[in-house]
Amino acid sequence: MTHVLFRDDAMSPHLVDWRGRYRGSAICVVQPGSTAEVSAVVAACARAAVPIVPQGGNTGLCGAATPSPEGGVVVVSLARLNRIRSIDPANNTMTVEAGCLLHTVREAAAAAGRLFPLSLAAEGSCQIGGNLSTNAGGVQVLRYGNARELTLGLEVVLPGGEVWDGLRALRKNNTGYDLKQLFIGAEGTLGIMTAAVLKLFPLPRAAATAWLAVDSPAAAVTLLASLQDRFGAALTACELVSELALQLVRRHVLRGGPELAASPWHLLIEVSGGDDQATMHDALASFLAKCIDDGRLGNAVLAQSGAQAKALWALRENIGEAERIEGPSIKHDVSLPISLLAEFIALADRALGETFPDLRIVTFGHIGDGNLHYNQSKIEAADNAAFLLAQPKVNRIVHDLVHRLGGSISAEHGIGQLKREELPRYKQPLELELMRAIKRALDPHGLMNPGKIV
Amino acid sequence: MTHVLFRDDAMSPHLVDWRGRYRGSAICVVQPGSTAEVSAVVAACARAAVPIVPQGGNTGLCGAATPSPEGGVVVVSLARLNRIRSIDPANNTMTVEAGCLLHTVREAAAAAGRLFPLSLAAEGSCQIGGNLSTNAGGVQVLRYGNARELTLGLEVVLPGGEVWDGLRALRKNNTGYDLKQLFIGAEGTLGIMTAAVLKLFPLPRAAATAWLAVDSPAAAVTLLASLQDRFGAALTACELVSELALQLVRRHVLRGGPELAASPWHLLIEVSGGDDQATMHDALASFLAKCIDDGRLGNAVLAQSGAQAKALWALRENIGEAERIEGPSIKHDVSLPISLLAEFIALADRALGETFPDLRIVTFGHIGDGNLHYNQSKIEAADNAAFLLAQPKVNRIVHDLVHRLGGSISAEHGIGQLKREELPRYKQPLELELMRAIKRALDPHGLMNPGKIV
Repeated sequence: MTHVLFRDDAMSPHLVDWRGRYRGSAICVVQPGSTAEVSAVVAACARAAVPIVPQGGNTGLCGAATPSPEGGVVVVSLARLNRIRSIDPANNTMTVEAGCLLHTVREAAAAAGRLFPLSLAAEGSCQIGGNLSTNAGGVQVLRYGNARELTLGLEVVLPGGEVWDGLRALRKNNTGYDLKQLFIGAEGTLGIMTAAVLKLFPLPRAAATAWLAVDSPAAAVTLLASLQDRFGAALTACELVSELALQLVRRHVLRGGPELAASPWHLLIEVSGGDDQATMHDALASFLAKCIDDGRLGNAVLAQSGAQAKALWALRENIGEAERIEGPSIKHDVSLPISLLAEFIALADRALGETFPDLRIVTFGHIGDGNLHYNQSKIEAADNAAFLLAQPKVNRIVHDLVHRLGGSISAEHGIGQLKREELPRYKQPLELELMRAIKRALDPHGLMNPGKIV
Repeated sequence: MTHVLFRDDAMSPHLVDWRGRYRGSAICVVQPGSTAEVSAVVAACARAAVPIVPQGGNTGLCGAATPSPEGGVVVVSLARLNRIRSIDPANNTMTVEAGCLLHTVREAAAAAGRLFPLSLAAEGSCQIGGNLSTNAGGVQVLRYGNARELTLGLEVVLPGGEVWDGLRALRKNNTGYDLKQLFIGAEGTLGIMTAAVLKLFPLPRAAATAWLAVDSPAAAVTLLASLQDRFGAALTACELVSELALQLVRRHVLRGGPELAASPWHLLIEVSGGDDQATMHDALASFLAKCIDDGRLGNAVLAQSGAQAKALWALRENIGEAERIEGPSIKHDVSLPISLLAEFIALADRALGETFPDLRIVTFGHIGDGNLHYNQSKIEAADNAAFLLAQPKVNRIVHDLVHRLGGSISAEHGIGQLKREELPRYKQPLELELMRAIKRALDPHGLMNPGKIV
């Protein structure tokens, strides 16, 4: 079996992103099986001045792993670098190759009695190298941080083919510039990650999950503060779900499912940690009872079993799938200071509603991180084709407001091709120049993932 | 009152580090009072091609803030940039200027009902800008991370005098290279931090502190794993103290103090968080009782009041002071994979003992982070002058062993002048070249803090 693909049909899955939004071409797709092979491929490309597009599981949402239509590039797939190199439970670390599926990484950690907390919808097909290259977020950032905070060391093939061995399994190391930070979140534009040392945690011994009815985003933010005050880092998830998002899931994916009080907004929360199950359950139960007593909370459903907890989580996790079935929409992945989340939602809803009548807005996200998924479509499906053409106008309204409130136009999905043209509007020119200076310093010939980010 | 110091007596406190190890000279010491003034000073220096040494509280241990004896530089003191610009409790963030004392930052956060968790011995005189520039650690890294993890945004005056405004108060922001990571830990070699957005946390509502007698570092590491399993992120400190370190404190600083069982090694642990005081105290008490029952632990003293907890902490916090009174020693600040801490101590003790007889080794540190302070002197004070001259040989033994075990020769103190010559021995040449490439990209004329790190 060859590991260099030239034929169009063989290359084709590597030339299009999974949503089919970007389609590119390439000279070939190379599938190296070791760091040394990646190094050799990159060195050969460097000698021939051929650009490279690194590709992980190809599940990104911004087209960072898809070549451009002009082609003339080599796609380097990391899928065959898929070994768990080592696990050190006493150090709470594991060393994995870039092509390991996130799911595989989590399973290997669990088999060693440890938690690797990064968790997201695509974990069955995304690769850890892609997760780190996009600084992935997910549902447990509140407690465990983004992919960046979960990375202790990296092995990277640089644009000339040299291998930087930065695979240190240390929590403190102040010996000069922290080079790994450059590559995390750089979407493959500075080099190709081939392996990483990841932080692990004890597996939580217990978890309690609840679905809360809240009146408004402002009430949700207030409740979040109370939850953090009471549970600290044991609060491992706090997800906001609008009634419309919930309805879509009920309509398209989970027709049965848990009975929940009608409410304009909902919060899915989880506390987990080292307490025994009864203690954790009772602690959350008494906290929620107190919140209901003093009027901070309308209604709460506390899962009485793991199966019930799963059923509640399914309502949250299927929002994306329900949206997909419902039809196309214009999606935003934004972050804001948590103190301005409610104001953002009110202002953005109003501004969009004034410009685009009969709009349906699906709002949900990780409010503990200030991260909202904020998606629009028309109530009448027939109106959607025209609406989608207005995406630049929609983005302008949403992103301008985000920017004005000190937020970010890409919280956890990155820039890739999708948002590259937006950067000059929202970044200080000096900041773009700094980014270009870094790019020139590490990749002077511009061979790594051209046309992405910078 | 002028804010430019020219006279030797006026400049003198700025030209020597606080331990008196490094002494330099300068054209003048400038004390700007705003970001705009810092920018103007840096721009003027850039035009005149005069190098700059940024200086915070001047409490560093590696000489990064002290100019070299050759002089010809301008020292820029950040002391007057000392405003708390804003606090946003709902977002759990605060924006502070670089010259704020760490103590002031912590107090301001507490006044808003929030915890800024960075805490270290020099907090009454060190400045937050220096803390971030050295990526400071301290006693709560286990739970809250290093200074890097506590920083959400930065304002930086670049080597040409331009001001980069990266003061975003966001927990998720993936819009290109994360530039703030470059400046954190760079010890002022890439620019001058003038302000930062810091992460805050709820003030813990309760804490329980205990002093544990353990047989060996290996037993301490095993116990750490059990503590993390049981308490997760509620374990906010886990400090190893050798019997010799404790004896020095008893002899020189705290003659009375809590009665403790004799033991070759000790652990000081703290759990804290949102439980009420009784629940937290009882949880730690029953955990410790179980450990004693099953033989994992010899003896434990659980503080019964805040005053008792303080008395236990004083034993740990005064080790440095006790060492200072005892006399000079050769100090190391190293980190290792936690799984290799015990092996490191055994091997290093033996190797040093074979080369230098009659040695006294004071070992203590943050074992939850794999970070040891590992300091040597001679038993006979009269032998110490000769021993101190052997520092390069001592360093070689310790650092070579650290390196062989995958550790770091500077865990939390940085490089500065002190360890600069050590880097080529322990860093891959490619890594040094990457660091130089970054330095050239951001500071092409080499004007920022010359002679430090790179």
